[in-house]
Amino acid sequence: MAGSTFGNLFRITTWGESHGPALGVVVDGCPAGLALTEEDIQMYLDRRKPGQSQITTSRSEADRVEILSGVFEGRTTGTPISLLIRNTSQISRDYSDIASCYRPGHADYTFDQKYGFRDYRGGGRSSARETAGRVAAGAIACKILRQLGIEVCAYTLSIGPITIDPEHFDARAICETRTAMPDREADGKAVAYLEDAIKRLDSVGGVMECRVSGVPAGIGDPVFCKLDALLAQAAMSIGAVKAVEIGDGTAVSTRYGSENNDAFRMERDRVVKATNHAGGILGGISDGSDILLRAHVKPTPSIYAPQQTVDNSGHDIDIQIKGRHDPIIVPRAVVVLECMTAITLLDAMMANLCCRMDSLERFYRNSDSPQD
Amino acid sequence: MAGSTFGNLFRITTWGESHGPALGVVVDGCPAGLALTEEDIQMYLDRRKPGQSQITTSRSEADRVEILSGVFEGRTTGTPISLLIRNTSQISRDYSDIASCYRPGHADYTFDQKYGFRDYRGGGRSSARETAGRVAAGAIACKILRQLGIEVCAYTLSIGPITIDPEHFDARAICETRTAMPDREADGKAVAYLEDAIKRLDSVGGVMECRVSGVPAGIGDPVFCKLDALLAQAAMSIGAVKAVEIGDGTAVSTRYGSENNDAFRMERDRVVKATNHAGGILGGISDGSDILLRAHVKPTPSIYAPQQTVDNSGHDIDIQIKGRHDPIIVPRAVVVLECMTAITLLDAMMANLCCRMDSLERFYRNSDSPQD
Amino acid sequence: MAGSTFGNLFRITTWGESHGPALGVVVDGCPAGLALTEEDIQMYLDRRKPGQSQITTSRSEADRVEILSGVFEGRTTGTPISLLIRNTSQISRDYSDIASCYRPGHADYTFDQKYGFRDYRGGGRSSARETAGRVAAGAIACKILRQLGIEVCAYTLSIGPITIDPEHFDARAICETRTAMPDREADGKAVAYLEDAIKRLDSVGGVMECRVSGVPAGIGDPVFCKLDALLAQAAMSIGAVKAVEIGDGTAVSTRYGSENNDAFRMERDRVVKATNHAGGILGGISDGSDILLRAHVKPTPSIYAPQQTVDNSGHDIDIQIKGRHDPIIVPRAVVVLECMTAITLLDAMMANLCCRMDSLERFYRNSDSPQD
Amino acid sequence: MAGSTFGNLFRITTWGESHGPALGVVVDGCPAGLALTEEDIQMYLDRRKPGQSQITTSRSEADRVEILSGVFEGRTTGTPISLLIRNTSQISRDYSDIASCYRPGHADYTFDQKYGFRDYRGGGRSSARETAGRVAAGAIACKILRQLGIEVCAYTLSIGPITIDPEHFDARAICETRTAMPDREADGKAVAYLEDAIKRLDSVGGVMECRVSGVPAGIGDPVFCKLDALLAQAAMSIGAVKAVEIGDGTAVSTRYGSENNDAFRMERDRVVKATNHAGGILGGISDGSDILLRAHVKPTPSIYAPQQTVDNSGHDIDIQIKGRHDPIIVPRAVVVLECMTAITLLDAMMANLCCRMDSLERFYRNSDSPQD
Repeated sequence: MAGSTFGNLFRITTWGESHGPALGVVVDGCPAGLALTEEDIQMYLDRRKPGQSQITTSRSEADRVEILSGVFEGRTTGTPISLLIRNTSQISRDYSDIASCYRPGHADYTFDQKYGFRDYRGGGRSSARETAGRVAAGAIACKILRQLGIEVCAYTLSIGPITIDPEHFDARAICETRTAMPDREADGKAVAYLEDAIKRLDSVGGVMECRVSGVPAGIGDPVFCKLDALLAQAAMSIGAVKAVEIGDGTAVSTRYGSENNDAFRMERDRVVKATNHAGGILGGISDGSDILLRAHVKPTPSIYAPQQTVDNSGHDIDIQIKGRHDPIIVPRAVVVLECMTAITLLDAMMANLCCRMDSLERFYRNSDSPQD
Repeated sequence: MAGSTFGNLFRITTWGESHGPALGVVVDGCPAGLALTEEDIQMYLDRRKPGQSQITTSRSEADRVEILSGVFEGRTTGTPISLLIRNTSQISRDYSDIASCYRPGHADYTFDQKYGFRDYRGGGRSSARETAGRVAAGAIACKILRQLGIEVCAYTLSIGPITIDPEHFDARAICETRTAMPDREADGKAVAYLEDAIKRLDSVGGVMECRVSGVPAGIGDPVFCKLDALLAQAAMSIGAVKAVEIGDGTAVSTRYGSENNDAFRMERDRVVKATNHAGGILGGISDGSDILLRAHVKPTPSIYAPQQTVDNSGHDIDIQIKGRHDPIIVPRAVVVLECMTAITLLDAMMANLCCRMDSLERFYRNSDSPQD
Repeated sequence: MAGSTFGNLFRITTWGESHGPALGVVVDGCPAGLALTEEDIQMYLDRRKPGQSQITTSRSEADRVEILSGVFEGRTTGTPISLLIRNTSQISRDYSDIASCYRPGHADYTFDQKYGFRDYRGGGRSSARETAGRVAAGAIACKILRQLGIEVCAYTLSIGPITIDPEHFDARAICETRTAMPDREADGKAVAYLEDAIKRLDSVGGVMECRVSGVPAGIGDPVFCKLDALLAQAAMSIGAVKAVEIGDGTAVSTRYGSENNDAFRMERDRVVKATNHAGGILGGISDGSDILLRAHVKPTPSIYAPQQTVDNSGHDIDIQIKGRHDPIIVPRAVVVLECMTAITLLDAMMANLCCRMDSLERFYRNSDSPQD
Repeated sequence: MAGSTFGNLFRITTWGESHGPALGVVVDGCPAGLALTEEDIQMYLDRRKPGQSQITTSRSEADRVEILSGVFEGRTTGTPISLLIRNTSQISRDYSDIASCYRPGHADYTFDQKYGFRDYRGGGRSSARETAGRVAAGAIACKILRQLGIEVCAYTLSIGPITIDPEHFDARAICETRTAMPDREADGKAVAYLEDAIKRLDSVGGVMECRVSGVPAGIGDPVFCKLDALLAQAAMSIGAVKAVEIGDGTAVSTRYGSENNDAFRMERDRVVKATNHAGGILGGISDGSDILLRAHVKPTPSIYAPQQTVDNSGHDIDIQIKGRHDPIIVPRAVVVLECMTAITLLDAMMANLCCRMDSLERFYRNSDSPQD
């Protein structure tokens, strides 16, 4: 199936491979009238771009975005926004080693099985570079959400065994630390942990968390388009994510109902929840509390240590992966999670506009020229 | 958005409320020529139907399915299969207590916020009774998969702190134990744990696991329609699920790459993986190993103990929930997970047929009358 | 592909065969809060039900609709509305004659080629009885549109060579004449024409027209979801329709631009068009004028005269079709066109709510509790 | 709604405006393994590119296509194919005249009403330049269909009152005449007719026809995804098309059933139809005969003669349109119709692969490594 499209009303279609001439995304359904510049998008791309420190790949890409359509005189027109990012640092080397064998933990084998062959240069379409398009689109979603009073904020929760201390939470640290941890002390420990792994030619995993504040109650649709179900798809679609939690997540399975239920309370004429074990979603619909989700990321499958595998002629072989890769995926994936969360939420908020007769009537009947 | 439809080629649309006259599902896109009887579907509905033991709700529903279309002379015709299940045990009582107040942990508040009012009888559309339609559709998907050599098997992994022992795994026990645990010893302990919770007017959570064997490599589509991403949506769309894991799931985030990568090896001319940390999916595409997923389920939000909440006039109140409800959701939800997994996988397998030119050419060119 | 679903936000899924136990439709995405009774729907079904006069089939079906979900205390809840219509007049006779041969002009051959076999009783899924579900769903769309000030009105424009005289247009005649013509004089002539054809064991074709008034400008989406493109799909999806025209339709191809362009003019502070050759749609988006479309319907393929065909063993044979069928499709299809037009337009109007930033901001920012 | 995507399995998303930096399309779901070069695509773009003769616009665009992704070592990989076409001949002039007023017959007014403003340069997204993306995608669909033995061929049937003579049909003339007529004599008359219209500062309409040969029976899905319904959407989505006919089209409405039914006959072990009034589609499914469709195109709305209109301050004004435009749309739109037909048909053929159990079983069970 055509799997590179996500969203229904705010709909993105990404394209591009790791070592092709370019990557990009088409954002269709973006509301008209949003002020939008390349700089709005570049800010987000810069957060995921490679080559930023010794704990990321040494591949250095400027990842400059170009807006090719959908923006006129500085504002979105309501028509598709095409965003292009040229690949500039494809190192021209002999890829024949991975062309004929399957790297453990990668999609080499499964792509070959599915399609009969694959673009083996740097993972091709299965490369994490694909997420550049998602981030470019997500930057637009984030900007719209911000104008609606909603903040989406993702960060590194843990790297290996090193977890942030919520009491030290410092939002500015997310963009300033090499680990994207909002806790400078934990960051220090995590970097030491990473350096040790690098020394041993190994890689490590971690956990990303995303918090969304300011979401009105009522967003999401029952049954299959529950907000948490779509967020789970969105998060799990990020390469290397192997588990997704909403609110207290896995912890709920060992709880009693009396512990896990969040009591409703009135607080200055507003309904609030005394606790937020639910992570802001009840029955698949936002309840007005912060939405909280976590994604568990496996260690980078590319490691420099030798590994056992097979080649495409059916022989057991040993390989030692060369090339440039991150010893951990998490710090650069954090902005991808933030963007996917924003896209999912915005799409659900757009769908929510037409779920009640009174909304339709207010929109179409309140004036002679309903569009003005 | 119209959220009651799932799947693209094998597409199901469920409908119905807890206390309406009936529930059901329309299955569109089911391949023609499948032998199908009501009994094939009833077997699955019987696994989720209520009133089976003291650890499930006392509501007793026969949940008899009626095939209204799409089957002719015992075989599916390729046109929509409409399945109807009449509600028969709606107890006619005064629901005004929950009509005007919001039960903690339920969707009462969020439905009211979204739609302006709600069908408050037994949860309406947000009731777990909605899943009857999914199970009826899933029974068909399971039957098709079985004909393709694929077995989908879900069971209770744990209830509160009681976890099955993999060494005691007994598949027959799944349908015979009250907990749907494949381990009779763990089942005994879990029932004791549940009885204690019931005594204290409380409820408990647990974990469901689903294993799929026989899946060919190559199923799933890159980027947003990764098989694991769609399985995550499918599992998270089941009410009360708060976390989804694929393969080793959350455990990967504290691992090193050298531990987590599964080595490929040749085994009698076939590529196999020495381990299966990945849970049968690499880069969103099946790798030929068993697919393994887990869903963490919160304790039933309906508890008999008094709770704090608010009413829809904006007053803090205390409520004590009456009615009939399960003290644990897991045992009856296991078959829902099995069915959602089957639907997701079958849909992906159908999409996979057209992803290669050689498949198209073989289908359309190999004979004069390609359809025969 | 699962082809029985239409619409994106207001989404209908029909099911059922001519001679199965029942037919129906699931309407998902209907806005919450609409007052809705079975009578609202029955009115529309009564317009298409068979057995109403000598120029329709003698099959007599009450076509009583039952609402099975999605309505609570007389109002739609925003969740799927399931509508059921039992078949009651399936005459149990020997269908083996058409089981093994292909009626000219029908879908017998193509269904067999596609699916390998078919439900041959009365056409099965390809029977015009399938449209009962569309009409039931369309009744809801029409009711919503009426509350937004929009009237959708379809009628018979011509039968064979007999065309209505626009100067005699009488809307009440549509539901009162046997031909659904809004011109009693033309109706008389058309009935005489039909009676002659019936006498000669033949059938006749005709043209349906649909006019929509009160549509605000701005509805429809550029490129592939142009309002006229979706209306063309909607109209052509009605069995036996072979051509669709918007506005002046086929006539435009022999015009000069200077004749065909509609001048814009101001009329009491409103932009109007001096003429409406465009049929209310410019660039795929409604322009505020009446939307006008026509669908050309072929003669009923079932005729009593003998015909040449083949059987499914590959022999040339002659057949003489028995059974009950209309000598003309148009009068009963008029309400189907009206309903498909309404569904298409409503879906586009719902999508239109989120196409501008100012709409989003007004909806989500103008109050503390935006949903109230 | 995000209206720039078409197709389900073979899915295209176009983007770009008349006077932006570039236009393009993303083709997702293209089967892997197709040999594909830029030249394959360029051939089709060259057929629609402007500036080819005095009867097309004087805007001269090379319309060179660049493949940015989805092709590796000369073959499609199964991942999205991104195609880019730079605009090079945007003449930088003062557009303020049309910025503030609404050209009759154009989408200026409707875009402004919908989105609040518009990219007024040359029509922006509503310009026919948008179709470059469709043609680029359609070139791929055509190539695949050709490998499956299917030819799609569109041409000009008539211009104003000048119609081709089927007896003079000459396929090579389509690409050689200035009118895309397959009849050199008619072409001569049509050019004379056009030159006269140009002299009078006017424009003319015409009819395009598309014939598809080699289509196997069984393609298309019942009810809403009937092949003719989707072709109608596809054709009507081309700007300026106001009517679509399948087979004998509008002529059927004045016929008797005995005249209109196509008899089935055996011809050397194959089922054929003695006539093809149906245009190759019965019940929405291909019947193995040639598919035939026609699209009626209005005269170019841009004419040099003065016209009445209004400006966006609500004043009646007269305008005289400057700029470059074609005096007739048809000759350059013919290839767009051909491409949209190919895309629609291929998508339906891909969906058709999974509609029968025996196809699934053959694909997944016939070998140990089902993908090979």
